Amino acid sequence: MSAGDPSAGDPRSDLVDPSDAYRQVRALTEELASTLSAEDQTVQSMPDVSPTKWHRAHTTWFFETFVLRPHGHSYRDFDPHYGYLFNSYYEAVGARHPRAQRGLLSRPGIAEIAAYRRHVDAAMEALLAAATPAEVADLVVLGLHHEQQHQELLVMDIKHVLSMNPLRPAYREPRPRLRVADAVGRGAGEPGWIGYDGGLVDIGRERAAGGFGFDNESPRHAVHLAPFELADRPVTCGDWLGFMEDGGYTRSELWLSDGWYTVQAEGWCAPSYWLEDDGWQVFTLNGVQPVDADEPVCHVSYYEADAYARWAGARLPTEAEWETVAADHPVEGHFLDPCRPHPAPIGTDAVAGPRAPRALFGDVWEWTASAYLPYPGFETAAGAVGEYNGKFMVNQHVLRGGSSATPVGHVRATYRNFFPASSRWAFSGLRLAR
Amino acid sequence: MSAGDPSAGDPRSDLVDPSDAYRQVRALTEELASTLSAEDQTVQSMPDVSPTKWHRAHTTWFFETFVLRPHGHSYRDFDPHYGYLFNSYYEAVGARHPRAQRGLLSRPGIAEIAAYRRHVDAAMEALLAAATPAEVADLVVLGLHHEQQHQELLVMDIKHVLSMNPLRPAYREPRPRLRVADAVGRGAGEPGWIGYDGGLVDIGRERAAGGFGFDNESPRHAVHLAPFELADRPVTCGDWLGFMEDGGYTRSELWLSDGWYTVQAEGWCAPSYWLEDDGWQVFTLNGVQPVDADEPVCHVSYYEADAYARWAGARLPTEAEWETVAADHPVEGHFLDPCRPHPAPIGTDAVAGPRAPRALFGDVWEWTASAYLPYPGFETAAGAVGEYNGKFMVNQHVLRGGSSATPVGHVRATYRNFFPASSRWAFSGLRLAR
Amino acid sequence: MSAGDPSAGDPRSDLVDPSDAYRQVRALTEELASTLSAEDQTVQSMPDVSPTKWHRAHTTWFFETFVLRPHGHSYRDFDPHYGYLFNSYYEAVGARHPRAQRGLLSRPGIAEIAAYRRHVDAAMEALLAAATPAEVADLVVLGLHHEQQHQELLVMDIKHVLSMNPLRPAYREPRPRLRVADAVGRGAGEPGWIGYDGGLVDIGRERAAGGFGFDNESPRHAVHLAPFELADRPVTCGDWLGFMEDGGYTRSELWLSDGWYTVQAEGWCAPSYWLEDDGWQVFTLNGVQPVDADEPVCHVSYYEADAYARWAGARLPTEAEWETVAADHPVEGHFLDPCRPHPAPIGTDAVAGPRAPRALFGDVWEWTASAYLPYPGFETAAGAVGEYNGKFMVNQHVLRGGSSATPVGHVRATYRNFFPASSRWAFSGLRLAR
Amino acid sequence: MSAGDPSAGDPRSDLVDPSDAYRQVRALTEELASTLSAEDQTVQSMPDVSPTKWHRAHTTWFFETFVLRPHGHSYRDFDPHYGYLFNSYYEAVGARHPRAQRGLLSRPGIAEIAAYRRHVDAAMEALLAAATPAEVADLVVLGLHHEQQHQELLVMDIKHVLSMNPLRPAYREPRPRLRVADAVGRGAGEPGWIGYDGGLVDIGRERAAGGFGFDNESPRHAVHLAPFELADRPVTCGDWLGFMEDGGYTRSELWLSDGWYTVQAEGWCAPSYWLEDDGWQVFTLNGVQPVDADEPVCHVSYYEADAYARWAGARLPTEAEWETVAADHPVEGHFLDPCRPHPAPIGTDAVAGPRAPRALFGDVWEWTASAYLPYPGFETAAGAVGEYNGKFMVNQHVLRGGSSATPVGHVRATYRNFFPASSRWAFSGLRLAR
Repeated sequence: MSAGDPSAGDPRSDLVDPSDAYRQVRALTEELASTLSAEDQTVQSMPDVSPTKWHRAHTTWFFETFVLRPHGHSYRDFDPHYGYLFNSYYEAVGARHPRAQRGLLSRPGIAEIAAYRRHVDAAMEALLAAATPAEVADLVVLGLHHEQQHQELLVMDIKHVLSMNPLRPAYREPRPRLRVADAVGRGAGEPGWIGYDGGLVDIGRERAAGGFGFDNESPRHAVHLAPFELADRPVTCGDWLGFMEDGGYTRSELWLSDGWYTVQAEGWCAPSYWLEDDGWQVFTLNGVQPVDADEPVCHVSYYEADAYARWAGARLPTEAEWETVAADHPVEGHFLDPCRPHPAPIGTDAVAGPRAPRALFGDVWEWTASAYLPYPGFETAAGAVGEYNGKFMVNQHVLRGGSSATPVGHVRATYRNFFPASSRWAFSGLRLAR
Repeated sequence: MSAGDPSAGDPRSDLVDPSDAYRQVRALTEELASTLSAEDQTVQSMPDVSPTKWHRAHTTWFFETFVLRPHGHSYRDFDPHYGYLFNSYYEAVGARHPRAQRGLLSRPGIAEIAAYRRHVDAAMEALLAAATPAEVADLVVLGLHHEQQHQELLVMDIKHVLSMNPLRPAYREPRPRLRVADAVGRGAGEPGWIGYDGGLVDIGRERAAGGFGFDNESPRHAVHLAPFELADRPVTCGDWLGFMEDGGYTRSELWLSDGWYTVQAEGWCAPSYWLEDDGWQVFTLNGVQPVDADEPVCHVSYYEADAYARWAGARLPTEAEWETVAADHPVEGHFLDPCRPHPAPIGTDAVAGPRAPRALFGDVWEWTASAYLPYPGFETAAGAVGEYNGKFMVNQHVLRGGSSATPVGHVRATYRNFFPASSRWAFSGLRLAR
Repeated sequence: MSAGDPSAGDPRSDLVDPSDAYRQVRALTEELASTLSAEDQTVQSMPDVSPTKWHRAHTTWFFETFVLRPHGHSYRDFDPHYGYLFNSYYEAVGARHPRAQRGLLSRPGIAEIAAYRRHVDAAMEALLAAATPAEVADLVVLGLHHEQQHQELLVMDIKHVLSMNPLRPAYREPRPRLRVADAVGRGAGEPGWIGYDGGLVDIGRERAAGGFGFDNESPRHAVHLAPFELADRPVTCGDWLGFMEDGGYTRSELWLSDGWYTVQAEGWCAPSYWLEDDGWQVFTLNGVQPVDADEPVCHVSYYEADAYARWAGARLPTEAEWETVAADHPVEGHFLDPCRPHPAPIGTDAVAGPRAPRALFGDVWEWTASAYLPYPGFETAAGAVGEYNGKFMVNQHVLRGGSSATPVGHVRATYRNFFPASSRWAFSGLRLAR
Repeated sequence: MSAGDPSAGDPRSDLVDPSDAYRQVRALTEELASTLSAEDQTVQSMPDVSPTKWHRAHTTWFFETFVLRPHGHSYRDFDPHYGYLFNSYYEAVGARHPRAQRGLLSRPGIAEIAAYRRHVDAAMEALLAAATPAEVADLVVLGLHHEQQHQELLVMDIKHVLSMNPLRPAYREPRPRLRVADAVGRGAGEPGWIGYDGGLVDIGRERAAGGFGFDNESPRHAVHLAPFELADRPVTCGDWLGFMEDGGYTRSELWLSDGWYTVQAEGWCAPSYWLEDDGWQVFTLNGVQPVDADEPVCHVSYYEADAYARWAGARLPTEAEWETVAADHPVEGHFLDPCRPHPAPIGTDAVAGPRAPRALFGDVWEWTASAYLPYPGFETAAGAVGEYNGKFMVNQHVLRGGSSATPVGHVRATYRNFFPASSRWAFSGLRLAR
């Protein structure tokens, strides 16, 4: 079992011309917010969610704080209060507005935030037009990958915001949805199983590798795997209906203890956003639609994914298993594509291009059995950006592969996403192993 | 001790021409919202607070539900979902959106709510242009007094919303503030005390009296009062600083047990909206300003008012004492005046005209020692509007007199406002008795 | 309408010989605890409840703190830590163990607390054997009435503790229960109504009156009453079943808003301690028994009492109405009688003697419509005992009359008991007025 | 790197004669409870803690439910309600009393629970006197290891219960404490570091191995380790004081994000049970004592252990690293020894024998960097006992090695203990790796 360069990802991730890359990434954020009203962009529907206008400002603050202030010639802050308002969690940078109170800020409004973005963009473009030292270029690339992560968060968050409204409004006009069946070439029924030998494999990213990677993907290191099989497709809504019809949400023996407690406390009986109303419907970014049995199931927690796997007589793959398989596949799937956001078909709520058969990437993030922990020899970056990933390495599980709300070019085989086991508002699904 | 017609109030409260009155009241609501952005109008800063746009819609829903739907010829609802979204607490009218989640509704936005108001206004003006039966006219007048109450709530609520923003933004451009000293003709020091004989007095409103009154003001009934004295002015910020300097917030013996618990749990050490920053400042609708020792103290809870009175060797008046004195005074004071909202001086955050000496009305609501309970023989109206006042008659205390955010013409000597003992976001102050 | 001495109460309340009185009261506390195990006496089932052994110690601490320490010659504290552990709420006496954590104290155990009682009793009896100044005698009498209040609390609290046990254990061996029908001479059906003229009446207790009274019963003062009628018996369980069968707990229009919220939040569908199991059963101090339709209903909150009265087309009496009627009646009813605790019949869980027809006293405390507020001219005592009653005068309602767990001789016509409107663990019922 | 039989543990764990083993284990539980009063045994100080008498009953219920009811000839339940009261978390066995309400049960009292234990013991001894099928023998051994786990829980829990009492009572009479210095042969200063080669190692327990092991220790499987060093002693209180003096609890950069949040929310500034009072003191089972710099630090959470390691420029070992080293060491250390509970010296609160130099076992459980997850190929047992371990495999971290409150013979190199990252009431410390 081997791979060329598993951390290389999509060539577009290299963002060769920094000015072009900067413009493209920044433009997509604005495009995603463009159909949302001032009111839409202000609401925070739960502590985990941030208002759209906050995402627009925070991604801008990132460049202002980590690039322009230390490295921009004679850069002047747009507003000295914004450091307090739009710092997310960087303790080293100073005090910040409480996360759960982001929705209490009516001001600055969207017009001021648009002006803030223009102010920072102008300074960034001036800086990028000049020769930039490697250290600064690295921070810019980090800022762009950071903004891509917030693009997905923006989509996750506005979906949650709109779902709290009994009018069930759509984020955008409906477009045709893609069926997994179109891609994997068959309908319901058992997934196919593909066997792998296991043995001693290397996973993770070389620190010195080309292209971009987050600190949590390194270092590359050896892991021993027993032989295993991986399903050739994610679990679908049709599969999930089978679990539900077999009493999946009412049988304690299928659940982890914390999961069973959560099922009872939250009254879960279906994935998040599903509604029972003359059959099962699902709230999507296009409004309420019938559940499509052939689509990958989405918005399930780790607890649910784990219970489903137990019910199916299987288990979730470890992240090492997943990565070992993915390293041999191109990073192709349904991603959020800024080049053609509108005409493309829709899979699981977002904007996506054509999908490779048996792809591991795109559509839905796949829960793994692995807790989110540092790789052996993991080191954080010096300074405030060292807080980016490392300090969250407890009480979370790893997800792999990306979703149709992940910007194209953002993920790669070594990419590690992570959420708490009870979390459901990400575009999270699963694939079985055994 | 006697009075002419203590429930008569300001002649403007009679709202003689219903069409004129309707237009004036509705216009003031829009005027109050006019400087607020879409973002400002969307935020809910605590469960007690409602977003500005919700107030604009709910007051409209009141006319739609209680006047137009039963009595408007061929009236068509603007949107069938609005009944669910904008019902406040009328159980008899059906299910409704949870109060604490009003801030999660980005839609309908302010443009749609403006259209809703125009739609209902057009139907109302058509209805009022025709001869209206007394029953309908009474509901219209109730709807207008209801909207006036929400005008004050709108001002209270947006003040709280803006106060949660670390930028401390102003609601409107600053204008000069009025000092109590201007009105009562002297500065700090002891209030004057005016004695009253007590005896058997009548308070409350005759059910058959002319003009408008809420159901909770009736019936008129006899109460026996011991002789008492009432201060000739409300307690000022200067008085309150004396209480604070004497350890008022740290001396348990001054406090009711529930009050002392609240002081500790909430960390109260000054009235709400006061900030210690190079001396005491106060957040107002005009932004942060120095505390003015001669202004009536405002935004204090019943617990604080009660503790202050005990510290001062006095007590709060009962509502019967207050009303008996007020019945002999004209309803003059600093009120919210729609005819001259802009050029007038400012007392305690709002828009006010000149103030009568020793006035009992306007400036700040005055906590009384009386629990909010039904008068002997109290009866609620039939139907849903019977829920207007009666069902809140427990766990609250009565306030009297009106504030500078109360629309002129809205209050009268018999008017009973009420809030829980811990509440501070109303424009609530106090006056001593002994 | 007049009365001899409405505050005189039962002659036994005068406690003429202080040593006898002291011994009798202290012995009853021990008798009440005598059948309870060490484990029973340790548990605290909710923050409002105190463990039995805490009641035994706290009543002892009261004598130690307010009598022996200031007035006992060369008295030595039993244990210097007990001041911290057994102070209930007297801020002036110093810091104290948090109320909600009384059940976390396994030590001192019941043997040490018995020794503490003996230590204090010996010192008290020595003190009482000498001539005691009036000031000290007054504190002793206050301590005895205080202990009588805790006797009822002890019974209320242990009932709640035992009710949390799924074994539903009995406090004592079952004895025959008394039926209201036995006393008032008839079965179910409408209560009789007795009319009163109203007018200007005096209520409350003269400060200089003989015998004992709490500070909150004074001063005597004039109140004006409209003519009214009072039911000749409390509401029974049979009456209450009618309310339940008519949907009483599901009809929002019958409830105060806070009450309706509480009904939903708590899932109330019957009085506290009622259990549906092959018909309605009730958990009593004698274990689970069938609901007796002729007994006074008990363990209902103010919210429920108020809703019931509305349903019945009546209302609750004010405390002034209740007292005016009671002043003409002897203080006779079913009380907790230390002279014959065992052979007597049982009404509503406790130990009671024969019951006078139409009695207002005993059986159950009766909720009144009156908020618990100071009487005009109310003054607290100087020093720590001034915290006894006054600081609780907010957010509570007054109950009158006493229950079968109230020690005989403890109540009188002017006696004011009080609980929050949501409280159900007292022996609280109601009587209608109109 | 290799090992003989790393899962063999102490020979006493084989419990060769089941009757002897049964008697010994059961007797130790009673011995541990023997100095506790009925009151002590009743209190539950937080939801995670169980009352002593509950532990005594629950361990008995385990034998009744899993051994006697299915396999005991004509066994009759002691009380049919006990199944509900004393089931801990076995969903398959039916409903159960809520965990957080175990402290509300005053009955059954300690006398009844003693009788329950005798009843079950008699039936068990009869069963064990006969030839028992292997299946039953396995359940008996499981029940004994289960009871040993509860012996440690009983000690942990009563320590927490007593610590909530401001009297700070001792569990037992003080005895001399052991210093780590006595064992490892030197005082404060840097630990020694011992290097290991890493490579491909096997950890975990063969399913078919002799002796006893829990299901979560299997199967044995290969793991790849990079070369590493492990400290030759646990972190001591003296080390920890250095961390505290260097601002360890106030420097966000040392902490995981969840840990930092917990530090602030809980106000942590030292290990649990430490008290600042004329220098640092610590509450122990022998009462309050000065902190001993040479003792292993105890009652720290995973968050604190992780922050300490970061501060020290090291990390926590993984469980595979720990086990690989431990497999070569005898299972010797300070354990709870039923053969000489009284005269032995005391280390970290409990009863312990002499300690081997550089021992990995006993004294304190050592947090590892490993999340508690199933080993590859993990399988739960069929039936209710399958709930024993597997359903807790999320949101916890593994601890290794045992404490001075772990019964001697209970642990082995493959043993996996686990607690949530915020948990502090276990006897949990740490050892550094790098």
